[in-house]
Amino acid sequence: MRILLLGFGHVGRMLASILSSEQNVHHKIRQLDATVVGIVTLEHGCLYNPHGISLAEALEQYRIRGGFLPTAAGSKPRSALEAVESVDYDVLVELTTLSIEHGGEPALSHLRAALRRSKHVVCANKGPLAFAYQELRGLARSSCRQLLFESTVMDGAPVFSLARNGLRGCTVKALSGILNSTTTYVLSQMERGFSLSSAVEHAQQAGFAERQPRHDLEGWDAAAKICVLWNALADANITPHDVERSGITHITPAIAQEAVARSRPIRLVARAWTEAGRPRAVVRPEEIPLSDPLSVVSGTGAALRIETDCMNPILIMQEHPSVLDTAYGVLNDLLLVSEAATP
Amino acid sequence: MRILLLGFGHVGRMLASILSSEQNVHHKIRQLDATVVGIVTLEHGCLYNPHGISLAEALEQYRIRGGFLPTAAGSKPRSALEAVESVDYDVLVELTTLSIEHGGEPALSHLRAALRRSKHVVCANKGPLAFAYQELRGLARSSCRQLLFESTVMDGAPVFSLARNGLRGCTVKALSGILNSTTTYVLSQMERGFSLSSAVEHAQQAGFAERQPRHDLEGWDAAAKICVLWNALADANITPHDVERSGITHITPAIAQEAVARSRPIRLVARAWTEAGRPRAVVRPEEIPLSDPLSVVSGTGAALRIETDCMNPILIMQEHPSVLDTAYGVLNDLLLVSEAATP
Repeated sequence: MRILLLGFGHVGRMLASILSSEQNVHHKIRQLDATVVGIVTLEHGCLYNPHGISLAEALEQYRIRGGFLPTAAGSKPRSALEAVESVDYDVLVELTTLSIEHGGEPALSHLRAALRRSKHVVCANKGPLAFAYQELRGLARSSCRQLLFESTVMDGAPVFSLARNGLRGCTVKALSGILNSTTTYVLSQMERGFSLSSAVEHAQQAGFAERQPRHDLEGWDAAAKICVLWNALADANITPHDVERSGITHITPAIAQEAVARSRPIRLVARAWTEAGRPRAVVRPEEIPLSDPLSVVSGTGAALRIETDCMNPILIMQEHPSVLDTAYGVLNDLLLVSEAATP
Repeated sequence: MRILLLGFGHVGRMLASILSSEQNVHHKIRQLDATVVGIVTLEHGCLYNPHGISLAEALEQYRIRGGFLPTAAGSKPRSALEAVESVDYDVLVELTTLSIEHGGEPALSHLRAALRRSKHVVCANKGPLAFAYQELRGLARSSCRQLLFESTVMDGAPVFSLARNGLRGCTVKALSGILNSTTTYVLSQMERGFSLSSAVEHAQQAGFAERQPRHDLEGWDAAAKICVLWNALADANITPHDVERSGITHITPAIAQEAVARSRPIRLVARAWTEAGRPRAVVRPEEIPLSDPLSVVSGTGAALRIETDCMNPILIMQEHPSVLDTAYGVLNDLLLVSEAATP
């Protein structure tokens, strides 16, 4: 399986490290027989080798230089889109970061171009699925290719897999979850008396908050996630602009502490459901009673409640996910592509 | 798809009611095109019709008489095993109740006989999978038939489906969960001051505790469940007799209340893991700190934590499952059989 990898941040490097591990004990991962033929970053250069890049060398080069050496002009595609459109590969793995401002671009164009070339797509970037789900789904269907995105939500916990395989015959009626770890962490810290800004600083030092945490704190990240979930699980087509959204920037330590004192901690909750035949989605801070399993979510944890017409609600929960989980979510998708391709 | 149904208790009747629903809005369930050619109970008679039993009539007959009319001697198989061995069907749906004393029998013999005849098996009875997992798995593999049992654990919440599809390439390292609702309910009631016997009576009145609650209270039910889980998820072959087991009969309201006062409610926890290359499984009452999501499980809820070598732990949780969920677990398995059969 020839992979074109877009993005080489934490997740990309973890994936490369798993795929390149010499002592890889995982039978199935070895069976994947993955060859990375290109690594393209948006700002730190690119690498190509039609016979397979040495991932160990790529990791070492990136570690030392913070990027790849400039490519000789003219000989190789210089942009990610050019690479998607011209390199010879089987699966596009899109790991660039979410852009709300640009409506999921440039990742959306990468996915479109790959699907139009009848390539499989594994995407960890929420943007394209949050902004253009039905279009991409349609492209994938018409070219009979896989469009998988397990790592867009809950760091690779198998939420989409669960819905595809475990809820056959059911219609998803409502979703509710705590999907953004920065706000959960910040709210937990405020409960202990820290200010918003110092809590954000802690989260950045711990490595899971973005340098620009606005997307997290204002609820855009959670909004994008609930869109991907609702689009995929309820076959809808909402975008983050359809989500009624309020963030946590108005919450103070006093408010957070007072809520905890009443046994109702505040968390940023994302919800989606159908109302009068139309999809509705909301992201807002809510007080959660301790009897609700969502109230246990703390630190970098996450949880999602799925309500269907056939079963009583089920929840899937992560206690302390890391970049490892996101990388394994991508790997799980790659294994599914590989299984589907092997009759 | 021609179904032979063994057992017509709460789950069997709910399944029949879903399958027979005239106003069935579920596209996929209609597509299943299920024809029940036999319903065999262990004590309440049987019904056969190679062209399909009217499930509405069967439900009505059962409601009025508490069973089916005696079959004319000689003309029809009179025992479940005879039916499994002689009736013409595609899928055996085994819904009889767990027998620890008889090592999973007679359900185990039903499954063996069906798989030897190259029939698919969907089983909600824990016994056969808890006592003879590898043998049955081997029979299913060698006849290229499906052996599915989603409803054996957590009332049909898609635990096995999640493990099959969402954890590709991972090795399951440990499981821990609260899997028996009677003990959870009884412990919750004891926290409120009720005695063990009156709590059991409540649970029986509410309809989810067995008339003979010994299996639940002594941990046999949870032991059987952790065996099915560990056997299927870790490809092992343990039986309930391999489980270090202690129940909750020695817990008093005072003990339960004192634990809650220390913010560590007692729950019956089932665990399995590998130690020095050998499987270990334990069922015992444990004090659970409130920071552990398992502590939120109350009433008829259940939860399972899955630890693998690839990802940080994930949890799947049910808040208030009912017989509806168990029946839909069986249906989800039937839909998978049907999909796998349609290329």
